[in-house]
Amino acid sequence: MADSIYEDYPPTLNPAQKEFLVRTVKDWATQNGLMVRPAPSLVSNEADTHGVLATNAPVTLFPSPFPRTCFEEAKALQTVYNKLYAAISCSEEWIGKIMEDLIDVDDFISNLWKVHLAVQKEGYAQTLSLGLFRSDYMAHSPANSADPQLKQVEFNTISSSFGGLSSQVASLHSELLESPPGNPIAYPQHPLLKPKGVPKNTAVETLSAGLATAHTAYGPSKSQPQLPTCILFLVQEGERNIFDQLALSRQLEKVHKIPVFRLLSSEILSHTSISSSNPSRPLIYCPPHAETTQFEVTTVYLRCFYTPTDYKSQRDWEARTHLERSAAIKCPTVLNQLSGSKIVQQVLATTTGPDHLQSFLPDTDPSLLSRLRETFAPQYDLSVSGKGRELALNPTTASNHVLKPQREGGGNNIYKTAIPDFLKSIPENEWKRWILMELIHPPAAAKNVALRSDGEVLGGGVIGELGVYGTILWDQNGGKILHNEQGGWLMRTKAEGVNEGGVATGFSSLDSVLLF
Amino acid sequence: MADSIYEDYPPTLNPAQKEFLVRTVKDWATQNGLMVRPAPSLVSNEADTHGVLATNAPVTLFPSPFPRTCFEEAKALQTVYNKLYAAISCSEEWIGKIMEDLIDVDDFISNLWKVHLAVQKEGYAQTLSLGLFRSDYMAHSPANSADPQLKQVEFNTISSSFGGLSSQVASLHSELLESPPGNPIAYPQHPLLKPKGVPKNTAVETLSAGLATAHTAYGPSKSQPQLPTCILFLVQEGERNIFDQLALSRQLEKVHKIPVFRLLSSEILSHTSISSSNPSRPLIYCPPHAETTQFEVTTVYLRCFYTPTDYKSQRDWEARTHLERSAAIKCPTVLNQLSGSKIVQQVLATTTGPDHLQSFLPDTDPSLLSRLRETFAPQYDLSVSGKGRELALNPTTASNHVLKPQREGGGNNIYKTAIPDFLKSIPENEWKRWILMELIHPPAAAKNVALRSDGEVLGGGVIGELGVYGTILWDQNGGKILHNEQGGWLMRTKAEGVNEGGVATGFSSLDSVLLF
Repeated sequence: MADSIYEDYPPTLNPAQKEFLVRTVKDWATQNGLMVRPAPSLVSNEADTHGVLATNAPVTLFPSPFPRTCFEEAKALQTVYNKLYAAISCSEEWIGKIMEDLIDVDDFISNLWKVHLAVQKEGYAQTLSLGLFRSDYMAHSPANSADPQLKQVEFNTISSSFGGLSSQVASLHSELLESPPGNPIAYPQHPLLKPKGVPKNTAVETLSAGLATAHTAYGPSKSQPQLPTCILFLVQEGERNIFDQLALSRQLEKVHKIPVFRLLSSEILSHTSISSSNPSRPLIYCPPHAETTQFEVTTVYLRCFYTPTDYKSQRDWEARTHLERSAAIKCPTVLNQLSGSKIVQQVLATTTGPDHLQSFLPDTDPSLLSRLRETFAPQYDLSVSGKGRELALNPTTASNHVLKPQREGGGNNIYKTAIPDFLKSIPENEWKRWILMELIHPPAAAKNVALRSDGEVLGGGVIGELGVYGTILWDQNGGKILHNEQGGWLMRTKAEGVNEGGVATGFSSLDSVLLF
Repeated sequence: MADSIYEDYPPTLNPAQKEFLVRTVKDWATQNGLMVRPAPSLVSNEADTHGVLATNAPVTLFPSPFPRTCFEEAKALQTVYNKLYAAISCSEEWIGKIMEDLIDVDDFISNLWKVHLAVQKEGYAQTLSLGLFRSDYMAHSPANSADPQLKQVEFNTISSSFGGLSSQVASLHSELLESPPGNPIAYPQHPLLKPKGVPKNTAVETLSAGLATAHTAYGPSKSQPQLPTCILFLVQEGERNIFDQLALSRQLEKVHKIPVFRLLSSEILSHTSISSSNPSRPLIYCPPHAETTQFEVTTVYLRCFYTPTDYKSQRDWEARTHLERSAAIKCPTVLNQLSGSKIVQQVLATTTGPDHLQSFLPDTDPSLLSRLRETFAPQYDLSVSGKGRELALNPTTASNHVLKPQREGGGNNIYKTAIPDFLKSIPENEWKRWILMELIHPPAAAKNVALRSDGEVLGGGVIGELGVYGTILWDQNGGKILHNEQGGWLMRTKAEGVNEGGVATGFSSLDSVLLF
């Protein structure tokens, strides 16, 4: 079934169909804010000195088929995953033990851990913690298997992005499926391409509601006299994906009526302050464009500080510490960020030793825990001798694995038969920075066509990754959960394609799903 | 009162305020589709071979003050104006007489008139006619006058544009006035800059409802077998203002569930047809991307063919004739387009001779006709000796006038003391192509700051023009009115400004109004 679904999908486009679809998608993107700021390779800074130009986000022309059972299972498990990662974040000692090994070899982990230790020593001023999570999966479809299985690729606890744009892509594909009204002909005829085929995507509503819940839970201003309150989005300089973020702030301002400000991570220390005379340590934001007005920050939403390159100097670590010790609810805290490291995922997936799932989620139905466990791909630690090293060093077994940096959002994966040589090329004491993971096999016949941000249209075989969003607000002190929701999803489709000049070139596009 | 309003408005921006406002407006525009395709001077075709880049429409940073009495009067008169221009369009003989003189000197008018005559000879297949009008005004505020008066600049009967983007600018300024919720500080403090200061702009709803009404009034398909029906937007090649148009088609598809297609004027003859065997002459559209599907066009909405340069060859005139003789409801017909010529405006404004208003609107309250007449600026014909020639040739009186081409949307105005020399430089038999109009004096102290599409921010004295939209559907056969509505407006603000390099340079921006 699954194979045949992918075999003849998407339908072939003749030149007129392709011209129409590409033009329609391009114009729709611009009309609806499905946009990014252009890469310097498309528009140089000199060509756009005032930074006004924008282009479509990379998108597939067609939604991608995805097994309904896997989609539903991912949604069903999200609030359990939320609870799991909240519980892990509360288990400071457990995280500390896992990080111990890494601290020697990884400056980033080490510095994050130091931020936590420093604030812990002083005492946290805020016990509430907000998670805006995204759990990423593939529909594992090995050659001889009848049914695709949901397998987790990674779990994101910081700056889980693309909720804003992803919702838009679902709307784009849905509209194309129904356009024009009554006589849909935007797409060529195909049994899968039916109106209402793409499920609703509530990522913007869900993520914004999570932030709004934290804002409300913060309670009244802790300043004397009381100040108006706000949410602060902390962002990177030159963020090209800004419209993804603005989708959330628009929702917060329009629907929840909550003031939202954006602040560059490099400006945290110059525009926010914590009064030394107020033991509650409220975080005060002074907007540079209205210097006489002060706001108290209820919630800091980090769309920065997730990668080592965001910390350019000691001042950035001071800024992170400054946030962490403030009374603002952090999305996420340092502990929550660390809980998203690949090494945590690997420890959870270990089938020998203590049953971590059971101990983090003692009141959860064991069948639900089994289902959670089912989504883990086998993965191994390389820090000690054992099965992981064995599998990684043998070219035959290595060929069914991928080597990933233990850090969240790391990239730089090493694949298959390249693994043994790579490991031999680095000092053995650095092996603990890597996790060996059994390869997930997405449907081999999957194909799509993408419109890149530079306007290139590329088609070919693709690999799709489904992300499911969840939000949770909990008390670090005792772990009480105040809010736990799932909602919204992301389909990301990557490929090596061939452009019109016949040159092989890649794309990574936002997509949506057609459930089958 | 009025003067003091303009004197200290808008408030001065310090660098941080300016940086914030400009960035916010830029990002808002991209997020919400307040966009245009960039001019070749900003992005060359070679730099954007696939045509994906877009930039903000030119917009003012602040809404512009506008007298409430003038705004309300313009709205109150719109349905009367609608009726007037519908009645004029029905008076073929009257239009013919006016055009007579121009046919010798103006190829464009002459060719339009020929299209009408050809179709009239064959017999029109459609008697319903749709007008999407915009009446443009200034708040005439001469130095010694206490109250500003509403004076009409021109009346547009074809391709009345900017309804889509103008609605967005009203939303942008409204949001800025209320941002952030509860503690608005996006703008510096100023008594005029209050939440809810900008009236709602329903241009998109009104214009789309007009098109939808025509679509419905067309009735069932006239083809055998019956075909699905659609509205066709006829557009120019390389239209930069496409997102203004897409705002209407989105509304038609989403709210009214009516299929809308866009077709280049150059492709009318290749993609539409009228069967010679069907005396009803339905206009059939074959979408090139779905060749087996045919749609019957209920309504053609012209966003092209309003200017001579849209007719590149005889084939374009054939296309116009093809539309005119079809059963599709035209927005507008040739007659309706001609009724929007400046010469019609001038004849209506003539205070001597027959009372045209009274004869076109016999059942209208005389006080309403007086109010309509009050909006006319004095204007004169130059075709014969008389007051117009006298005023135009005397440098002293010329200095209070403007010379305009008699054609709608002409541009190329000649101002003040340049008029006598200009007239003397052209053959006297061409004078009839020009209308002399007494200058309207907008508030002299009006100022604003604009963000152009190239990102330049320019401030200075401005001239604001208010356009009010109206839609009317009538039967050319007898003049029965089936629908007559006003709704939505456009504020357009023009200036000579000074850029940051100190160079004088102009802008023409979309704006909104603050009523006072």
